[in-house]
Amino acid sequence: MSNNQEEEFDETIRKRLFSQVCDGESKPPCKVTVVGVGSVGMACSISILLKHLATDLILVDVIEDKLKGEVLDLNHGNLFLSNVHIDGGKDYALSAGSKIVVVTAGARQQVGESRLSLVQRNVNIFKHIIPKIAEHSPDAIIIVVSNPVDLMTFVAWKLSGFPRHRVLGTGTNLDSARFRHIISTRLKVSPSSVHACIVGEHGDSSVPLWSCVSVSGRSLTSIEPNIGKPDGPKGWDKVHKEVVDGAYDVIRLKGYTNWAIGLSCAEMVESILKNKHRIMPVSCFVKGVVGIKEDVCLSLPCVLNASGVSSVVEVSLNKDEKSALDKSASLISEVQAGLKW
Amino acid sequence: MSNNQEEEFDETIRKRLFSQVCDGESKPPCKVTVVGVGSVGMACSISILLKHLATDLILVDVIEDKLKGEVLDLNHGNLFLSNVHIDGGKDYALSAGSKIVVVTAGARQQVGESRLSLVQRNVNIFKHIIPKIAEHSPDAIIIVVSNPVDLMTFVAWKLSGFPRHRVLGTGTNLDSARFRHIISTRLKVSPSSVHACIVGEHGDSSVPLWSCVSVSGRSLTSIEPNIGKPDGPKGWDKVHKEVVDGAYDVIRLKGYTNWAIGLSCAEMVESILKNKHRIMPVSCFVKGVVGIKEDVCLSLPCVLNASGVSSVVEVSLNKDEKSALDKSASLISEVQAGLKW
Amino acid sequence: MSNNQEEEFDETIRKRLFSQVCDGESKPPCKVTVVGVGSVGMACSISILLKHLATDLILVDVIEDKLKGEVLDLNHGNLFLSNVHIDGGKDYALSAGSKIVVVTAGARQQVGESRLSLVQRNVNIFKHIIPKIAEHSPDAIIIVVSNPVDLMTFVAWKLSGFPRHRVLGTGTNLDSARFRHIISTRLKVSPSSVHACIVGEHGDSSVPLWSCVSVSGRSLTSIEPNIGKPDGPKGWDKVHKEVVDGAYDVIRLKGYTNWAIGLSCAEMVESILKNKHRIMPVSCFVKGVVGIKEDVCLSLPCVLNASGVSSVVEVSLNKDEKSALDKSASLISEVQAGLKW
Amino acid sequence: MSNNQEEEFDETIRKRLFSQVCDGESKPPCKVTVVGVGSVGMACSISILLKHLATDLILVDVIEDKLKGEVLDLNHGNLFLSNVHIDGGKDYALSAGSKIVVVTAGARQQVGESRLSLVQRNVNIFKHIIPKIAEHSPDAIIIVVSNPVDLMTFVAWKLSGFPRHRVLGTGTNLDSARFRHIISTRLKVSPSSVHACIVGEHGDSSVPLWSCVSVSGRSLTSIEPNIGKPDGPKGWDKVHKEVVDGAYDVIRLKGYTNWAIGLSCAEMVESILKNKHRIMPVSCFVKGVVGIKEDVCLSLPCVLNASGVSSVVEVSLNKDEKSALDKSASLISEVQAGLKW
Repeated sequence: MSNNQEEEFDETIRKRLFSQVCDGESKPPCKVTVVGVGSVGMACSISILLKHLATDLILVDVIEDKLKGEVLDLNHGNLFLSNVHIDGGKDYALSAGSKIVVVTAGARQQVGESRLSLVQRNVNIFKHIIPKIAEHSPDAIIIVVSNPVDLMTFVAWKLSGFPRHRVLGTGTNLDSARFRHIISTRLKVSPSSVHACIVGEHGDSSVPLWSCVSVSGRSLTSIEPNIGKPDGPKGWDKVHKEVVDGAYDVIRLKGYTNWAIGLSCAEMVESILKNKHRIMPVSCFVKGVVGIKEDVCLSLPCVLNASGVSSVVEVSLNKDEKSALDKSASLISEVQAGLKW
Repeated sequence: MSNNQEEEFDETIRKRLFSQVCDGESKPPCKVTVVGVGSVGMACSISILLKHLATDLILVDVIEDKLKGEVLDLNHGNLFLSNVHIDGGKDYALSAGSKIVVVTAGARQQVGESRLSLVQRNVNIFKHIIPKIAEHSPDAIIIVVSNPVDLMTFVAWKLSGFPRHRVLGTGTNLDSARFRHIISTRLKVSPSSVHACIVGEHGDSSVPLWSCVSVSGRSLTSIEPNIGKPDGPKGWDKVHKEVVDGAYDVIRLKGYTNWAIGLSCAEMVESILKNKHRIMPVSCFVKGVVGIKEDVCLSLPCVLNASGVSSVVEVSLNKDEKSALDKSASLISEVQAGLKW
Repeated sequence: MSNNQEEEFDETIRKRLFSQVCDGESKPPCKVTVVGVGSVGMACSISILLKHLATDLILVDVIEDKLKGEVLDLNHGNLFLSNVHIDGGKDYALSAGSKIVVVTAGARQQVGESRLSLVQRNVNIFKHIIPKIAEHSPDAIIIVVSNPVDLMTFVAWKLSGFPRHRVLGTGTNLDSARFRHIISTRLKVSPSSVHACIVGEHGDSSVPLWSCVSVSGRSLTSIEPNIGKPDGPKGWDKVHKEVVDGAYDVIRLKGYTNWAIGLSCAEMVESILKNKHRIMPVSCFVKGVVGIKEDVCLSLPCVLNASGVSSVVEVSLNKDEKSALDKSASLISEVQAGLKW
Repeated sequence: MSNNQEEEFDETIRKRLFSQVCDGESKPPCKVTVVGVGSVGMACSISILLKHLATDLILVDVIEDKLKGEVLDLNHGNLFLSNVHIDGGKDYALSAGSKIVVVTAGARQQVGESRLSLVQRNVNIFKHIIPKIAEHSPDAIIIVVSNPVDLMTFVAWKLSGFPRHRVLGTGTNLDSARFRHIISTRLKVSPSSVHACIVGEHGDSSVPLWSCVSVSGRSLTSIEPNIGKPDGPKGWDKVHKEVVDGAYDVIRLKGYTNWAIGLSCAEMVESILKNKHRIMPVSCFVKGVVGIKEDVCLSLPCVLNASGVSSVVEVSLNKDEKSALDKSASLISEVQAGLKW
């Protein structure tokens, strides 16, 4: 029997059960698309679902079996999510009208591989993906998760033709969370009560702003001027290395990272969809901010609201921090120059 | 010094702190207006805020001092609400672009006063309010809380000129919650696991559907055929009276009801804003459903989604229930006939 | 430099930053342990974390690298979880004092493998696990997720020496969620508004209670008496098969199931930790209920509260349903008889 | 007919519906008591309920009608709270075993009345209340909301005989929230992204720590050294006055304050019950911290976890701030010296 006949039967039952008041469905009030159903894409998806941020969640990927399996598995749990519309496919038409598109597609970082080495492969993938996103959701905000995230955010921005406030990358939001977690564990307080931030490139050349680390308005450098430096208090000199190595450690131990980046991404989605104006260190085009001269995306604390990135904080940097940030910008710029578009 | 000068100073500080990326604010993603800042309006407001349903909450009332006090008090707690935009005034222009407008304005039910006796006073108030709501938020869904809620929902519908799916009243959503709470206490299970529903007029002539009360698919009438009837199991014969008297009891004891109706209203707001398609017994125009012939609003189980009421359930009623529902419809219709518009 | 010296430095910094008021840590207010860090264990974990149910989450597994990687990855996101204490190891001493222990350990169901064929392998694993859980958390409630879940729940109960109300399995809570999702999609309402339940064995011999399926108190059999049967309305005859095949489909498509079972498990954890008295179809020892004569665990709707399973619903079954349930019980009992303890 | 007979009927129905697995109820996993059902007590209660923090909420007051009305009203909404056990009475035995007792009882602050003038009346009330709380919940943490909150926290601590970490007051948690809200509105960011703190006495002599106000690690004094001072940027000089006047303004406009203090209190309850280790400025006994010599309670940033106040931050104060804090301590100490116990 055809599906048409089945649908007729369903229609008959609905007619006997319900008196229809309003024809048709309204357009989705809050649709989010996640591109890529690898472990990162799915961690973003489950975090968005369990934070009840979207009314519609669309998954897009080219690996159709895996994709269908993920959509089916999530839908089986829809009762426990209080009814989100979940669907997916390889056609970007499904994503039409999304408020946010999270892009996790891309080759996975291998054990020991630097983020920068992934880049050209992923540029080629983005040339396929980004124009379709922009076509079907011309008003969307794009959040890039794919690595190397700063370069890929720049690439996505250029390929989308979107204004710069609507293309951002997860950047050092996660590095900063790791940083705050490690410090908070040493101090025995909640990470939310440790104010600290890592800026620059997501990864190896990231810049921890030790001069800004504070607890209840008390800067740690006021207690230990050299904290975080090689000649500072023992143990604390390794904290930034622990942050940078964090991703590599997790990849070595379980093969990939996903939960923390998924949670980090969902936090950004929340601040945007709910127009929170929260400040988070994320990657966006920052030429001209804190004296950066390169045409690059990298992370600085940004105000996230319904427009995407509404502004970037002109953070205060000491000489060493400024120099490290400039180096981070140069590194990104150099690789960028070599990209084939 | 003028406020303009102050704003200039603020602008200066912002410019030194932030590099602006996006000019202007996007339009509020999810704005809700509550009309009336009495105890009911404020219970609706705090429930909506603590359920994190709105990005913007606007309060409107004519009593300006009370209104300003409530807006200020809520804003003082904004840190704990993670930054909702809260504002208020007597001008409906503030409410422009609301997705939902909750109307709680109206004279408060006095001790011993029937809901029906309030009606003409409130019609006069609605003639002032509803057209302004419709003017400033022509695509809004209106939720009427003011009593007598079924009549006021009809009045609001007529005055708004909105399609019928966009004007609904809290109706027996609360009566049903009371009903389920009382039964669940006797059975020692969660009220969410007791499936039961009260339909018809909110209040004295409401109709408990004992034939539909079930727990895990087991109907209570299969255990006690006369449950809920005068000759049924002792104690259970008084359950419906306990529901009807519930409001009067609370009014007698504390002077007014507010928490339960606020929670009930927020649940409806959630189902609409999040496009849940949940079924709740709420008041809307039901002529033609389950054989109702009158031009009235009353409560039947309705599917609530982003369109408002998308459909009404054709509930199954036994003879007594049908007759009681018809009586409920007649009572409303009679009063309605006497209204001066 | 030794860790002791590092800890001394940290202590020095803490002393300069804080004046200590209370020595030592209080015991964890709400500790949950998840045994097994495969895809199911991690889906349970992330669901429990994002629903903010636990103050402490302990992961236990024998595969230490994977385990450490998962603990590290979750901890990197701890800022976004507002500070849950997350730890893990292979020593069950870490789990001491848990309120709930979720057991997901066991061999994974292979493509096409019946749940029953897994059993003896898993019994051997449980002989190692369960006594250690019982030793370190003698007051815990054990939730078994490992398949075949009904047999493994029975095995866990026997090995634990716990009273029967403190050992339960996820059972048909998931099958019922799938069932409600499929029906709700056809009816275009929220799955939470479709009341329906699958009982018996989790999996192939599960029993859908079509006679109890209802929407707003309106039973679907009152609309179509043969709904769900081979001679009933087209499409609906395949719904139960779709439920049973659901798990196999997901396994075929993505290699394993995890999200829906994780969400289902977290819902049970919530009802227990928050003493909700919600009714869910879960697996527990049911001899004597609805006439079941065998010494087996299988799923019937149960009231879940802080005691675990406080009672089981004496569901009403028609003749066919009763016969199917008896067959389900027999099947489980037969395999159980062959187990080597 | 007697209630005993009714209970027998209910028991009969329950026996036909359920097969009992576990006799008796477990003790409440997470019981919170609120003393005083005025507008503040009820705002605390509804905030605790809507944040899903407690499994049991007990209200205690001497005004029995009002109390019964509030309990009934909340219970009518219990379906929407997913089943919290809510009860109340004048007998403190009902509160036995509470994890937290929130004390809001006391005379309400009149228009224009300083908080200090309320004190002796409230001491007399506390002599009646606190020993009963301590008797029935000897392991509870007491949160004092009643004004003048610093004095009343001291009084509650002394009367309870509890260790100092288990008696705290809401203190300047609210003043700080107001402070952050006002600054965040001027800067157009979320209040959660403005790090700022008010210490000292809750109210007139409170001390804003301008030197610690920062956004993303950038201190506002680095932009405007005199910010907040009389000779600093215009508008900002009035911010602290606006905070202090905030409560008086709300009282003048609506007659009392309740929402913000309720939300502030619920945030403290959350940090304690969920063992968050979050830092909040709350009132507790601080002799010896930052050089305070008096035997007083006042607010400093404190780490709140399951023990209550686990430590107090040794905030950095400039000369003016230290002098203002000392004055605040003296003021409290003087009034305290005049109290009749």
